[in-house]
Amino acid sequence: MYTLYYAPGAASMVVHLALLEAGAPYDLRLVDLDAGAQRDPAYLALNPHGVVPTLVVDGRPLGESSALLMLLAERHPEAGLAPAPGTPGRGAWYAWIAYLASTLMPPFRLWFYPQDLHDTPDVRAAVQRRIEGVWDHLQAHLATQGPHLLGEQFSGADLLLTMLMRWSRNMPRPATQWPALAQLADRVRARPSWRRLYEIEGLREW
Amino acid sequence: MYTLYYAPGAASMVVHLALLEAGAPYDLRLVDLDAGAQRDPAYLALNPHGVVPTLVVDGRPLGESSALLMLLAERHPEAGLAPAPGTPGRGAWYAWIAYLASTLMPPFRLWFYPQDLHDTPDVRAAVQRRIEGVWDHLQAHLATQGPHLLGEQFSGADLLLTMLMRWSRNMPRPATQWPALAQLADRVRARPSWRRLYEIEGLREW
Repeated sequence: MYTLYYAPGAASMVVHLALLEAGAPYDLRLVDLDAGAQRDPAYLALNPHGVVPTLVVDGRPLGESSALLMLLAERHPEAGLAPAPGTPGRGAWYAWIAYLASTLMPPFRLWFYPQDLHDTPDVRAAVQRRIEGVWDHLQAHLATQGPHLLGEQFSGADLLLTMLMRWSRNMPRPATQWPALAQLADRVRARPSWRRLYEIEGLREW
Repeated sequence: MYTLYYAPGAASMVVHLALLEAGAPYDLRLVDLDAGAQRDPAYLALNPHGVVPTLVVDGRPLGESSALLMLLAERHPEAGLAPAPGTPGRGAWYAWIAYLASTLMPPFRLWFYPQDLHDTPDVRAAVQRRIEGVWDHLQAHLATQGPHLLGEQFSGADLLLTMLMRWSRNMPRPATQWPALAQLADRVRARPSWRRLYEIEGLREW
């Protein structure tokens, strides 16, 4: 049994999707970000950074959405979220997760929380260019080696990417303006896990 | 047999350390960053981002230092770079790697390549604060739950962290000004892999 601390549509979404894909039993705890619940001392004791997600695994609270995706893929191999250790796609699985977590998630954080760095129109424009540069790179990859990040094989990396694409929906150029990205998003949005998550988390847009 | 494309002291360092810790056979190829060799078409064919490291694994070129660390830890379990799957430290292993790769490496990139975002003194000061905030967080963790990131157990996450600490050596406040960080660095620098890497890569400072 897992316990997931989440906020609708936040970075917890990929962890929630992985739990649904795995058919793993879990409890859900809403963290009301608008009310500042992420800064409650009780929550900070679980997650010192005051962010979602936190997943309690065997009684231990753990953070970092990309780490939790990898951990769940490993604990539930039958869900097929990752190529098995020793198989050809295994290195690319690690590499795509690391790329998305270290190259795409940080500028998104700056886009949504510009005060983290230094909030000026020039910085904002530069952050937007960095995000769009990642879409360019992913478009080039998916157009030639897709339709998924790992080629023919769906993986949890596609869940992470589609969550991040969703975050761009109100940006000047949403990710779905890149055709191979739009195609991948359509595939992931057609999965039962995605539809079930929308019901549970009460999401509407996108 | 692996082939590592590296530059002395760059992000390839943690991959090189992992190879040495594992006692794995590898070829080394220097990428002369000052001469712009990372933008040679032959290198870009291996690594579209034009960065180091690239590790060729079973004939496939792979990037992302944190991903390569996880992959090598998995392929060489006898090296003890990571807690085994299913053991209590496994989740924390993934979480610390993800934290360092997504929260500490990106501001370092902005520190060394400020033109990536928007190069002003205010942005630079904000980037410095973000890096120092990570040292604060790690100090608090290591002082209570150290001496390693995973407690008593050394892991490859300590190699990644120590490489990143080294990058701060010429900053206004290098990481070693935080006592628990300095202690961890001393442990890692005493390892045969660290000393051997200094000889091979021709490093001196720190």
